[in-house]
Amino acid sequence: MTTDESLVHSQFQEIRRGSVMIAVLALLRTPQYGYALLEQLAAAGIEVEANTLYPLLRRLEKQGLLTAEWTTNEPRPRKYYRTSSAGTTAFSQLIAEWTRITENLNHLTHGDHQ
Amino acid sequence: MTTDESLVHSQFQEIRRGSVMIAVLALLRTPQYGYALLEQLAAAGIEVEANTLYPLLRRLEKQGLLTAEWTTNEPRPRKYYRTSSAGTTAFSQLIAEWTRITENLNHLTHGDHQ
Repeated sequence: MTTDESLVHSQFQEIRRGSVMIAVLALLRTPQYGYALLEQLAAAGIEVEANTLYPLLRRLEKQGLLTAEWTTNEPRPRKYYRTSSAGTTAFSQLIAEWTRITENLNHLTHGDHQ
Repeated sequence: MTTDESLVHSQFQEIRRGSVMIAVLALLRTPQYGYALLEQLAAAGIEVEANTLYPLLRRLEKQGLLTAEWTTNEPRPRKYYRTSSAGTTAFSQLIAEWTRITENLNHLTHGDHQ
């Protein structure tokens, strides 16, 4: 990997990280446990590693954006996460910001700034 | 600022950072010096501080994604940056990735994952 590719690569990572919390808050409107969520994210084309996702889930829970509940009616207990009311508000703000920036980038790319 | 707002705020920063390099590479298809670029970015709704932008420009130059040239036919010499051929390639890759993720997020938000 050349240094050029390395800088572009790190920028890819930055863009991807920015999308993960939005995707998590969107998907967890339906309660889900960590591993299943990880698979849903991968299927949806949102790239995130387990060792990034799990700490994020705990942080989001701690800050009240997710609620969590252990189920015991399955062979092994699982912690189900769900987007809270505060999480829904945060999701709306984040997707609005993502959309605003996307529109600005589209304008720069195709627009009259050339 | 509550901790909730703080987490959302840091996520805003992440999303914004991801967009800056794309915007810089797009705008510098027309040569420009740092301060004027900063103003163009602000006018385009891309939020970045001077103390973030200037080191980014130097890094992009060092890695060959921008070329730079000092002009001396102005009252004070200015360093004009321009997106290089490698920078144009990087721009295309980054905007493609941004678009891909945006489509995935839109699908998650409005789609059949509920």
